[in-house]
Amino acid sequence: MVRISRWHHDHIWDPTHECMDPEQLRQLQLERLQATLNRVYKNVAFYKKRFREIGFVPEDDLTDLDDIKRLPFTSSEDVSNSYPYEMFAVPLREVVRVHSSSGTMVNPRVVGYTRQDLKTWSNLVARILTSAGVTADDVIQITFGYGMLTGGLGIHYGAELIGASVLPTSTGRTERQIKIMKDFRTTVLVSTPSYALVIADRMDELGVDPKTLSLKYVVCAGEPWTEEMRQEIQERLFALVTDNYGISEVIGPGVAGECLERAGMHIQEDHFLAEVIDPSSGEPVPPGELGELVLTTLTKEAFPVIRYRTGDLCRIIETPCACGRTFRRISRIEGRSDQVVVIKGVNIVPERIGDVLEKIKGERPPYQLVAIREGHEDHLEIRIAITEALFYDKMREQRALVDVMRQKVANFIGITPRIRLIENRSLRRDEKGNVILFIDERKLQ
Amino acid sequence: MVRISRWHHDHIWDPTHECMDPEQLRQLQLERLQATLNRVYKNVAFYKKRFREIGFVPEDDLTDLDDIKRLPFTSSEDVSNSYPYEMFAVPLREVVRVHSSSGTMVNPRVVGYTRQDLKTWSNLVARILTSAGVTADDVIQITFGYGMLTGGLGIHYGAELIGASVLPTSTGRTERQIKIMKDFRTTVLVSTPSYALVIADRMDELGVDPKTLSLKYVVCAGEPWTEEMRQEIQERLFALVTDNYGISEVIGPGVAGECLERAGMHIQEDHFLAEVIDPSSGEPVPPGELGELVLTTLTKEAFPVIRYRTGDLCRIIETPCACGRTFRRISRIEGRSDQVVVIKGVNIVPERIGDVLEKIKGERPPYQLVAIREGHEDHLEIRIAITEALFYDKMREQRALVDVMRQKVANFIGITPRIRLIENRSLRRDEKGNVILFIDERKLQ
Repeated sequence: MVRISRWHHDHIWDPTHECMDPEQLRQLQLERLQATLNRVYKNVAFYKKRFREIGFVPEDDLTDLDDIKRLPFTSSEDVSNSYPYEMFAVPLREVVRVHSSSGTMVNPRVVGYTRQDLKTWSNLVARILTSAGVTADDVIQITFGYGMLTGGLGIHYGAELIGASVLPTSTGRTERQIKIMKDFRTTVLVSTPSYALVIADRMDELGVDPKTLSLKYVVCAGEPWTEEMRQEIQERLFALVTDNYGISEVIGPGVAGECLERAGMHIQEDHFLAEVIDPSSGEPVPPGELGELVLTTLTKEAFPVIRYRTGDLCRIIETPCACGRTFRRISRIEGRSDQVVVIKGVNIVPERIGDVLEKIKGERPPYQLVAIREGHEDHLEIRIAITEALFYDKMREQRALVDVMRQKVANFIGITPRIRLIENRSLRRDEKGNVILFIDERKLQ
Repeated sequence: MVRISRWHHDHIWDPTHECMDPEQLRQLQLERLQATLNRVYKNVAFYKKRFREIGFVPEDDLTDLDDIKRLPFTSSEDVSNSYPYEMFAVPLREVVRVHSSSGTMVNPRVVGYTRQDLKTWSNLVARILTSAGVTADDVIQITFGYGMLTGGLGIHYGAELIGASVLPTSTGRTERQIKIMKDFRTTVLVSTPSYALVIADRMDELGVDPKTLSLKYVVCAGEPWTEEMRQEIQERLFALVTDNYGISEVIGPGVAGECLERAGMHIQEDHFLAEVIDPSSGEPVPPGELGELVLTTLTKEAFPVIRYRTGDLCRIIETPCACGRTFRRISRIEGRSDQVVVIKGVNIVPERIGDVLEKIKGERPPYQLVAIREGHEDHLEIRIAITEALFYDKMREQRALVDVMRQKVANFIGITPRIRLIENRSLRRDEKGNVILFIDERKLQ
């Protein structure tokens, strides 16, 4: 089924770095880490305080990469608490782009980029796309959301740097996406894995035969997925599918990506220092074992992060890769270490939904979130127990309340949930009788 | 109420060109026009055929700018008929970006950009934004749609070139837009005029005092509007409002823009040749008189257009401007010369909606489009006569049909209409008894 030749395997965007001697890489990492730590110590009050608390002076105390283990982790709450600009390491005047999370925390996590950061980012995405087979000859359709989230614009700049013909279709309107894919002769589709399958379903309905398309590659990211899903996308869209990894707080897309060997995602180790830890103890786990990915930026100017806990569970792969790249790899993201739920690429903290509901009538109703997959499309259903305050005699008023709830939650998280009012005893509970805040009915594994 | 100083008036992005001697400008235009005509004659079959039909050989027959009047106009249908890539003047390999209209024609109008075109575009938008007061110190919030339409990404690249801090918020989620405006200390808002008023309304509801914001400028475009709306936005958002003009087939945003004198929009005459014609005769109208704007690109590589009929009605202003720029200006766009209806920045041809409805049940029902303004938000209502084929006994089935109609139309034009089924005789008709296809209840004038 694969239309590409081995020839593509030789394509490497930046062989000087991507095929670096490991010893030299460690030296480069050390120098860059020292520079980064000096910078945050000098420019970011948050880190200065943290470092001082443990008596850590970067220029004296960092002589080996392992010294980083003395430093405390940075959490998503730390970033959220520094809203909006407190963790920026340069004045706002030098910042040319601001992105943020969709705001499911009390405050969204805001990140900034200098002109140099945007260049770095574009280069990293160009590496990822090149390793996934993309060249200047390709027509690349980007179905990630453009806007405050980093997905769309992140991939866009990298694709443009390569010189591919970029179709910035952004999200939604599947029928139109398919028409564009067909008429514009798209060769590369960038999407979440589940949306790739939504497209495949819709093609079936419309009677579009994927073999008549020009599609060669599907570049996937943005949510947990499985090897079975990859196989299904490959077979149904008749194209080769690769995985890649990004996270806004670290840079966005471009942190790590699979080459065409598809045996784990190469971490861009000259720009990011990766650790995998036991989420409860914080101690490193051995290569090959599952743990939480922790990342430190080595070159970011506007928004460096030190030992950022991504919440994403994966394994480090140290065996050499046939592609020639020397960077270590991470396995597919196998889940989350925290309360965060990912639906349609949006991170949701179930607790925060309660805050939104509470504001509406001044009372926090019992509720639970349910992730549902219909066909290949994910939906969020919120089940809310009918309490005195939420109950109306008149159907019209009841429906108006549901509309308000849907609207307020949609405003908050950026996707529109289904709201179901149910009796309190119908909410699913754990063995202690507590309402289970989140039920995943998508059966990913 | 104005917070800015006269000092800003001196800011000109590219004084060498923007303040050019008119005689030199005409010489530059002539050289660039010759190069453009030679290029399209050589590379675009559509123009070659057109030119041959009238025996026009660019290198012999163009010795004066006025010679362009011998050439036929290019229409939006011409662009639509060349779907998707037939009018591109370079191979697809050299195209790094593709945009398109929202597809309200049978085929959307597709345009492409080379790397050089993107540079030109960014520079033109940087000029427009600079003339509207924007500098590297600003925090600019872009509420235009990012994606296949040119508005969002067009402004984005220009703002980034200036070095402003760009917040790519894209459309929708007004409450979040306001939160961002407040918390991120936005100084420049880019939006359609009606959305600026939607934001003002919402601020009132939320109790946000615009005087507590950092907002200095609102940069408006994308739909017909009035001087009264400008005054209202200025007073309610406590910021200075300028108008600008762009059109995807020509380049996108950046064709013309007001300086802070706000006395008409300077046309970027070193890149575009502007004519204003009588829409029925095609003959030029004198300066100051209303006519249809016709544009010819002078530097575009991937997608040049010759005498493109924009359908937009305006006047040429030839009096000097106090800002020092020597480019002539166009007045506010006062309407359309054709069947195209603009709602929420989307161009809609009422006839085409009938095509969509016809496909659903195999019959073209009598229908009419109504543009409604509620508060400051525009809506599209489609009134459809209930015919035999569209009538169901069961409410549930009737509702399902309406849902399908809404969905199909939304897929086609990109905005979600309200569907109202009404009796045939309730549709408004003209004196001849024909159903009026479009009724504008927004009362713009």
